[in-house]
Amino acid sequence: MKYSSESLERVIDLFATLPSIGRKTAQRLAFYVLKQDLDYAERFAQSLLEMKQSIMLCSVCFNYTENNPCSICTSNNRNRNQVCIVEEPNDVIAIEKTNEYKGLYHVLHGCLNPIEGINPDDIKIKELMPRLVEIDEVILALNPSMQGEATSLYISRFLKPMNISITKIASGIPLGSSLEFTDEATLARAMEMRVKF
Amino acid sequence: MKYSSESLERVIDLFATLPSIGRKTAQRLAFYVLKQDLDYAERFAQSLLEMKQSIMLCSVCFNYTENNPCSICTSNNRNRNQVCIVEEPNDVIAIEKTNEYKGLYHVLHGCLNPIEGINPDDIKIKELMPRLVEIDEVILALNPSMQGEATSLYISRFLKPMNISITKIASGIPLGSSLEFTDEATLARAMEMRVKF
Repeated sequence: MKYSSESLERVIDLFATLPSIGRKTAQRLAFYVLKQDLDYAERFAQSLLEMKQSIMLCSVCFNYTENNPCSICTSNNRNRNQVCIVEEPNDVIAIEKTNEYKGLYHVLHGCLNPIEGINPDDIKIKELMPRLVEIDEVILALNPSMQGEATSLYISRFLKPMNISITKIASGIPLGSSLEFTDEATLARAMEMRVKF
Repeated sequence: MKYSSESLERVIDLFATLPSIGRKTAQRLAFYVLKQDLDYAERFAQSLLEMKQSIMLCSVCFNYTENNPCSICTSNNRNRNQVCIVEEPNDVIAIEKTNEYKGLYHVLHGCLNPIEGINPDDIKIKELMPRLVEIDEVILALNPSMQGEATSLYISRFLKPMNISITKIASGIPLGSSLEFTDEATLARAMEMRVKF
């Protein structure tokens, strides 16, 4: 489909590169921007640039931050003996929202996937090493996917000689759901991982 | 939820203003932009601005265009005696995609909604008048919502004295769907609007 305007087409193409945005939604978003006044597009454009220019990776935990090291790594209110390993920066946000965890983080920026050529050197695994001196517990909080599980296993083997407690967040039936509608793999895992009541 | 960075928060807020984008998706989109190189954010920012700066409303049909009048209004390959009235510019794209229609358009930019204070003067109804001199058929292609129907009715009354053929696109059961899963209102309308076979 050719649109009446090349500049419109470019914006639709760019929106469509975003995850979970198909071409039809991209078109809707572009038309929405068109309907707003120029100030809206200017704020949008400027905010995107400012964000990209001001945000870097924390040199300790590799989360996104405006100040290096980040506010979690420099905080005095966090337990500096615990480190929670996650795949992506958004996982940090998800865990922070629970208000359950007061330790540090380590963001891998991906997980192992030999088929797609993602090896230990391509994610932030070796960067974990220098951090382990004051760490008592490593919490593995990777996604319960095949790659996430493989990465957890790799890291746990890698840490084994160091006498650090290694834990992994529980997988099982999500709260509020029902057995009937839980997929078999999850239910099997929940059964296998049953705990004393 | 406070993010680690104000610039990130601003981008998430802006993505969340877009239609059909909730806060969680907005967060995902912002993180996606963060993951790309600076060039991506620059292209995105620039394309948004260029689009807003170069696109205006066609002074004839009120569709979005980079050149006024737009390519449809100035085309020699279109039937200049038909005008199809739609609510929004994306409706023009939807109809153009069918390759079924070769006439002109008229974009209202909304439809009547007295409860929300949208009256005939707030949409491009009176702008239709000067166009009617060479028009034989007005095709009403508004959304089959309460407001769309009311607007169609208003326009048809307004055009009645002018001896112009007024048609309305058919509503009924969408192709490929089944009677069983069609909502009652649509089915009732399909029954009412039945045609000779």
